[in-house]
Amino acid sequence: MENRDLLLFSPKTPIHIAGPCSVESAEQIEETAAFLSKFGVPVLRGGTFKARTFSSSFQGLGEEGILMLARAAHHNGMACVTEVMNEDQLAFALPHVDMVQVGARSMFNYPLLTAIGKAGIPVILKRGMGATIDEWLAASEYIATEGNPNIILCERGIRSFETATRFTLDVAAIPIARRRSVFPVIVDPSHAAGESSLVFPLARAAMAAGASGIMVEVHPDPLLALSDGKQSLDFQSFELLHRELTAVCNALESLK
Amino acid sequence: MENRDLLLFSPKTPIHIAGPCSVESAEQIEETAAFLSKFGVPVLRGGTFKARTFSSSFQGLGEEGILMLARAAHHNGMACVTEVMNEDQLAFALPHVDMVQVGARSMFNYPLLTAIGKAGIPVILKRGMGATIDEWLAASEYIATEGNPNIILCERGIRSFETATRFTLDVAAIPIARRRSVFPVIVDPSHAAGESSLVFPLARAAMAAGASGIMVEVHPDPLLALSDGKQSLDFQSFELLHRELTAVCNALESLK
Amino acid sequence: MENRDLLLFSPKTPIHIAGPCSVESAEQIEETAAFLSKFGVPVLRGGTFKARTFSSSFQGLGEEGILMLARAAHHNGMACVTEVMNEDQLAFALPHVDMVQVGARSMFNYPLLTAIGKAGIPVILKRGMGATIDEWLAASEYIATEGNPNIILCERGIRSFETATRFTLDVAAIPIARRRSVFPVIVDPSHAAGESSLVFPLARAAMAAGASGIMVEVHPDPLLALSDGKQSLDFQSFELLHRELTAVCNALESLK
Amino acid sequence: MENRDLLLFSPKTPIHIAGPCSVESAEQIEETAAFLSKFGVPVLRGGTFKARTFSSSFQGLGEEGILMLARAAHHNGMACVTEVMNEDQLAFALPHVDMVQVGARSMFNYPLLTAIGKAGIPVILKRGMGATIDEWLAASEYIATEGNPNIILCERGIRSFETATRFTLDVAAIPIARRRSVFPVIVDPSHAAGESSLVFPLARAAMAAGASGIMVEVHPDPLLALSDGKQSLDFQSFELLHRELTAVCNALESLK
Repeated sequence: MENRDLLLFSPKTPIHIAGPCSVESAEQIEETAAFLSKFGVPVLRGGTFKARTFSSSFQGLGEEGILMLARAAHHNGMACVTEVMNEDQLAFALPHVDMVQVGARSMFNYPLLTAIGKAGIPVILKRGMGATIDEWLAASEYIATEGNPNIILCERGIRSFETATRFTLDVAAIPIARRRSVFPVIVDPSHAAGESSLVFPLARAAMAAGASGIMVEVHPDPLLALSDGKQSLDFQSFELLHRELTAVCNALESLK
Repeated sequence: MENRDLLLFSPKTPIHIAGPCSVESAEQIEETAAFLSKFGVPVLRGGTFKARTFSSSFQGLGEEGILMLARAAHHNGMACVTEVMNEDQLAFALPHVDMVQVGARSMFNYPLLTAIGKAGIPVILKRGMGATIDEWLAASEYIATEGNPNIILCERGIRSFETATRFTLDVAAIPIARRRSVFPVIVDPSHAAGESSLVFPLARAAMAAGASGIMVEVHPDPLLALSDGKQSLDFQSFELLHRELTAVCNALESLK
Repeated sequence: MENRDLLLFSPKTPIHIAGPCSVESAEQIEETAAFLSKFGVPVLRGGTFKARTFSSSFQGLGEEGILMLARAAHHNGMACVTEVMNEDQLAFALPHVDMVQVGARSMFNYPLLTAIGKAGIPVILKRGMGATIDEWLAASEYIATEGNPNIILCERGIRSFETATRFTLDVAAIPIARRRSVFPVIVDPSHAAGESSLVFPLARAAMAAGASGIMVEVHPDPLLALSDGKQSLDFQSFELLHRELTAVCNALESLK
Repeated sequence: MENRDLLLFSPKTPIHIAGPCSVESAEQIEETAAFLSKFGVPVLRGGTFKARTFSSSFQGLGEEGILMLARAAHHNGMACVTEVMNEDQLAFALPHVDMVQVGARSMFNYPLLTAIGKAGIPVILKRGMGATIDEWLAASEYIATEGNPNIILCERGIRSFETATRFTLDVAAIPIARRRSVFPVIVDPSHAAGESSLVFPLARAAMAAGASGIMVEVHPDPLLALSDGKQSLDFQSFELLHRELTAVCNALESLK
């Protein structure tokens, strides 16, 4: 299997992964999946074990959330992905989800990477906010070395002195990672933007720079979201983003 | 006059400014101008007073270079721009060039900004490599306050911990500067990239993020360039970039 | 118990924690412990489960290393600390070591922090290389919230654009963390320095800025070290550092 | 003449340069000079041409301020220094001041550096907030190359992602610049701190790391200062800082 053609990454839409920051209820995730599946988004995302800066913040629905996520995804003909932060969460998620995510805060968690490598499950490996491109690619080797080539690299912004955005999206990391690695590179514009209106130009820039696809946070009602609502798109915004990225993709295709 | 419609910024090509890092000879700059004018590039760039890290590096042809630059540009129906680092250089350049550039290393040079404001000449204001977006926009106020509204903001990459590129292109600065300022925002992908192959994805990303145009380094023979040859495009590469950016622009236009 | 007076942190020496980057053999760690105990260093450090950028690098002696470390420390009247990267490593280390370390790459590993909080074992919490001071202190809350107040904060340098050092030691983080937290703040100058000669000025600066103590890498023969030899002190250098820091401490004491 | 023994840098006090951010009145600067001279501070500082982010901020008293500064300094047996941002300001300052300062925002202003080199006047060269150590030292070569060896390098903090301080003081730059350059290295803790209480630990850290001296902002009444009042010391605080740094210096001397 050629990694860049991972089954899940059909070229029908530039938005490969979408869904809420956190799974909050069966209704919320089902409503989101039903909406996204109409656009051909292949993978539904939803946080269930949340990595939150403050121990007092909403920590996710845990195992119950995974079951809600998987049910909503599969019922709508989608695959699903959730973030896991340690081996116990991985073990629980494995029978239910189609893909796991290693978050930016866990990119350096080598025992977790090794465990995911052994499990063989497809994985989205986010770049750490303080990690160089080469450290990110070296982290992917921890997974690949165990015999798991189903790795998708995800650029999501790095820390810089600029505070106008939550993180600084490093668009150059896209062509560089593509050149230095065999794995596909997608981009999460939501975390870098920190606010929904900036998701549009960052997503367009990422596709134009050569990203294989986009992962974006979508919520039926961002104002009521329990986490990251400020940077989440509502359904109408998602539709607009989908239209924009399709146009950019078509333009790039026409050049080949 | 509406600033975003500066006469020089006709929408016929996404590459608004191009030319060598340094003017090296009458032949070199004439050959470049003749080539670029065929693509409708409105402004010819060429360094004549160079800001070099090392005092022993090539420092530019100075006043002689300005005359070569202006002759080549005007002879080919183009406007021209060169960087000035102090008021003396500004005074010399004023009668000859159509526009001046404030380089990243001079963005905080408030006396120079004030002098350019008083001179009323169109100006490209590059963002400092260590400057926040808000400091950059505050610098533009030093010029505007003197009654000169002919300002073009230019994002060119900031310093971050990532060393895979020369600078980290901050694509989010494009929509943010557009929102917070009335001046057009262009992007110089050459300095951020540090190498010519990365100029393509960065330029495409910049246009997709909403830049009004691109400034790019072009040299008839990059291998022989006296400065920044590694990141300069040759004529063939320029042609490819022009084709790519036109496609991206058309895609964005179709969405309006 | 007042946290800043943790039993292990007797004020007899400014170097609270020392030892090799990695435990490499029983002889190596015993020789180091015998040497350090003569200076009153209360805690012996030694990596046994290593977080290495490349999966092909030396990964540590694991459980066997922990036994060597504990034997050498206790035999010489010292306490010992080793880094753990997940709950399995924590479970194995718990019966043997007196303290565990959360490395910079694990600072955001909230499940691990929670587990250490529940275990109640004293812990050194290093600041992540891309973490703000506030995120670091929020991470300490994950441990404290579980009823474990035996936390020592450790500044070890952050990522910046400067490449002359491995990391940029943020000395201001010392007084700020002391002001915003009840936990003692120590400094690891070795990782920031990246080379042994810079360990001296950075350690002196850290003590002068108000650090409660220093953690430093010491190896009987740095040239033969399996990891981080370049930044490790040999015994003679340790003696000099001890003398320097004692002088700085005495000067600060005299001001009280 | 050995540069590190510049006449102005007598070792009687660790605080080599002090004074207000801006000269505000003859009374203010005279009162400050009278106070500082009692402690043997050799050089009085005071901004007269201010580099302010916003064009609407207080821009300094200009030439009038220079005369006030020089009168107060010389009347109290001190030398004086003020910042110049271009050649015109340099030309005016030259007959009146004993030393000029190149601010962080002007470090890359090569024509200014060259002019100062030609003028031969002693100069404090601050490190740019986005400049590497090597770029800073290369800037000093622009001055030295013209035959002016009277250069004092001044570290004052760099831009990083940490926002708890105004800038991140790079203490490692002190030993590294000392090693790679023949010029003395002093530190300005005021701008990095951004608030007066942090000036103490940063100044102590700088001396402990090997700085030749400290430059600090002092104002008779910081609450009334027209610029940078938040980070300025009042007279009582200066006295405490002087006591602290003397103790640190004595400790370091005792080690020689």
